[in-house]
Amino acid sequence: MKNNKLWLASLFWVPVLAQAQPQDKPNIIIIFADDLGYGDLSCYAHPTIYTPNLDQMAHEGMRFTQFYNAACVCTPSRAGLLTGRLPIRSGMAGSESSGNVIYPGSTGGLPLSEITIAEALKDVDYQTAIIGKWHLGHLPQYLPLNQGFDYFFGIPYSNDMAPPLYKNAPELPLFENENVIESGPDQHLLTKRYTEKAINFIEKNSDQPFFLYYASNFPHTPLFASNDFSGKSKRGLYGDVVEELDWSVGEVLKTVKKLGLSEKTLVIFTSDNGPWLLRGENGGSAGLLRDGKGSTCEGGFRVPAIAWWPGTIKSDQTSADIISTMDLFPTIVKLAAASLPEDRIIDGKDISPVLFGEKIEMDNKVVFYYFKNEIYAIRKGPWKAHFITKPSYSKIPPEVHTPPLLYNIEHDPSEKYDVSENYPDIIKDIIDLKEKHEAGITLVESQLDKGGR
Amino acid sequence: MKNNKLWLASLFWVPVLAQAQPQDKPNIIIIFADDLGYGDLSCYAHPTIYTPNLDQMAHEGMRFTQFYNAACVCTPSRAGLLTGRLPIRSGMAGSESSGNVIYPGSTGGLPLSEITIAEALKDVDYQTAIIGKWHLGHLPQYLPLNQGFDYFFGIPYSNDMAPPLYKNAPELPLFENENVIESGPDQHLLTKRYTEKAINFIEKNSDQPFFLYYASNFPHTPLFASNDFSGKSKRGLYGDVVEELDWSVGEVLKTVKKLGLSEKTLVIFTSDNGPWLLRGENGGSAGLLRDGKGSTCEGGFRVPAIAWWPGTIKSDQTSADIISTMDLFPTIVKLAAASLPEDRIIDGKDISPVLFGEKIEMDNKVVFYYFKNEIYAIRKGPWKAHFITKPSYSKIPPEVHTPPLLYNIEHDPSEKYDVSENYPDIIKDIIDLKEKHEAGITLVESQLDKGGR
Repeated sequence: MKNNKLWLASLFWVPVLAQAQPQDKPNIIIIFADDLGYGDLSCYAHPTIYTPNLDQMAHEGMRFTQFYNAACVCTPSRAGLLTGRLPIRSGMAGSESSGNVIYPGSTGGLPLSEITIAEALKDVDYQTAIIGKWHLGHLPQYLPLNQGFDYFFGIPYSNDMAPPLYKNAPELPLFENENVIESGPDQHLLTKRYTEKAINFIEKNSDQPFFLYYASNFPHTPLFASNDFSGKSKRGLYGDVVEELDWSVGEVLKTVKKLGLSEKTLVIFTSDNGPWLLRGENGGSAGLLRDGKGSTCEGGFRVPAIAWWPGTIKSDQTSADIISTMDLFPTIVKLAAASLPEDRIIDGKDISPVLFGEKIEMDNKVVFYYFKNEIYAIRKGPWKAHFITKPSYSKIPPEVHTPPLLYNIEHDPSEKYDVSENYPDIIKDIIDLKEKHEAGITLVESQLDKGGR
Repeated sequence: MKNNKLWLASLFWVPVLAQAQPQDKPNIIIIFADDLGYGDLSCYAHPTIYTPNLDQMAHEGMRFTQFYNAACVCTPSRAGLLTGRLPIRSGMAGSESSGNVIYPGSTGGLPLSEITIAEALKDVDYQTAIIGKWHLGHLPQYLPLNQGFDYFFGIPYSNDMAPPLYKNAPELPLFENENVIESGPDQHLLTKRYTEKAINFIEKNSDQPFFLYYASNFPHTPLFASNDFSGKSKRGLYGDVVEELDWSVGEVLKTVKKLGLSEKTLVIFTSDNGPWLLRGENGGSAGLLRDGKGSTCEGGFRVPAIAWWPGTIKSDQTSADIISTMDLFPTIVKLAAASLPEDRIIDGKDISPVLFGEKIEMDNKVVFYYFKNEIYAIRKGPWKAHFITKPSYSKIPPEVHTPPLLYNIEHDPSEKYDVSENYPDIIKDIIDLKEKHEAGITLVESQLDKGGR
């Protein structure tokens, strides 16, 4: 958000004065894994991936079992996380002609009129950084420093978007702020380098509120681990990479503890979408959930998630609340006593009561968009209706279901037993909900249509 | 084991004197769920089954991720657990004509020449009880009091083996010792009654070593929960039943703690086989594992397992060691300074080093038998070769694979990627292992052929 936009936006923003406790502004760290599935951590019962640091984080905090992304692929998921809005509202959903993410040849990006978590927090004097993968536009105007981040160290898109897989793309660029500092960095060292940069950022800002968005580009393929982790996991290379990421999370938490910041730092760990099953043994596992990345079944959208904030979040909590990455925007804005934009729809809800251990009724709706701005499924409470289905990354054409398939997701998390015949009223309710939702959507220009691959 | 048999057996038993520490004989509690799958507990990442007591037990102890049964159905699994021997050695494996478990019309049972954990422990003055389901023969001579147990409260076979499902069977008998005390007990109250009996037994024996084998007949169908749990779980009835079982485990542990026995009581929680997927929403989940009960895929044999022994087993441990319920016999015999029979093959191995946190090389072989005494698969280290496959409870005939399918189970726990073409040497090793194993098997009379259904 540039200054002129800030001025304009301020006309619409209303500071949440009653809740303002500036002296309590917590630091915020979001650690965002890439393609890590619901079943890929030891604390989510993976048999042979050993993640002692994330297990300990869960033990000291809250583990979520019904935590969703805004999309089942990378770019729209990240747009949803950072804006609190469905990607379709910002033009960051896929379209038929474009595919579904930003490619090296893409010329679009997250519109500058969108307000990111970083921008909202800059407004209340946070220091902000992104370490890792951006993937919301790599032309200069779309880079993180134009979206509220003071510092960027990482790559502009996925770590496979370079030769040999993308023949016409340049070697993978490694950015520091607005400059490419290396072409084709040694990916074996990326996790170590990200970790070092994350620690530096925390240490440098230990006396002021900060927001660190650490978006690792792993375990997205191609997989690379440093010598310290290579060949160490029983799970093979995929496990090595996840275990190095686990180590990295441990180093971040160790730094927070060492600096005495534990009680004023909220750390969220999650993933951008489900596992890339297409990658075989180099892809992860969605556990008991059906399908993975690229699917509107649960395995595509539902991911592991852990929240940590000693003294505020109680230890050893498990939450089955229906939560989305889009909820982080309004939640963080509230915790930081920043302002919620009033000129736009925010799809997320404030989940701070969940973190505080309060039992409340919350919005329990999840809308599962696929490419072409189409709603494939809607979850409302325990019920999920599939209007259209398509196995991930298959050539099988989408199958339209009239009436929709209906699953009780809380009884049947693996989406095996269609019970649509027994619950016509539930189906009617969800169809109504879908129509109301669609009426509230204003189609905007697709950013993903711009440019080539 | 009757007295004359005891005398005979004593000729072959060698007390393990070097390890004998009679003053330290720990109490042993085995809690054995029925048809609970790998994915069915909160600490194994089920999204909507809430098991705070088992989660706490895992937190205070050791959770296993590669823990196997001796079989993928009830009767042979229980024979393997109690004898430490593959069910085929005792005639407790299935056969073509018989089906694969003891039915109400069966007249066979676990041969009295077999030595159960209870018998081995009686020999060193343990008090012994089974609360719950037996399923190793219900003619008088095969009942638990003839197999080393001082006390029996429960049912002789599965809780569905009565009308209406079994038309010619009597109403479900509830035994106390050798007597049927009720016909068709209210199954809603069984978990409460088992819990009360288990607590009574522990309280009565708090000043002497005891062995409690608490073999709940749930969550095997038909499902019943008491009023306190009915309708409470987000997972529906199946969840209600598992959550009541979790409560029951909590009551048992609370009793152990209250009596000051925590540091001298080893508690093991596990299940007899994977989830009965055929039962739809009334069946459980194997998590990321393939298939369930009745299958030689991992979902049939691999189950959740937790070991708890404060002061001896460290807290917050996860073990990926390859362990079997058959290992409990030699392990418990050693811990109790009892004697291992030397006149027979014991398939289990002593896993006490794992419990003590020692890193050791152990036998890492698993033999997956199916009906008709046939080996369907063998696991050796990370490799599993499937010689024959058959989806559980399907009418699809068994499919023979020559060469066998080969999976790296530690890289690919869901058994999706056959890599047999790449590893001919591994296949040759496993075929050799199979031949050697088969040469060591002496076929005995099948107990499951006796009588009708």
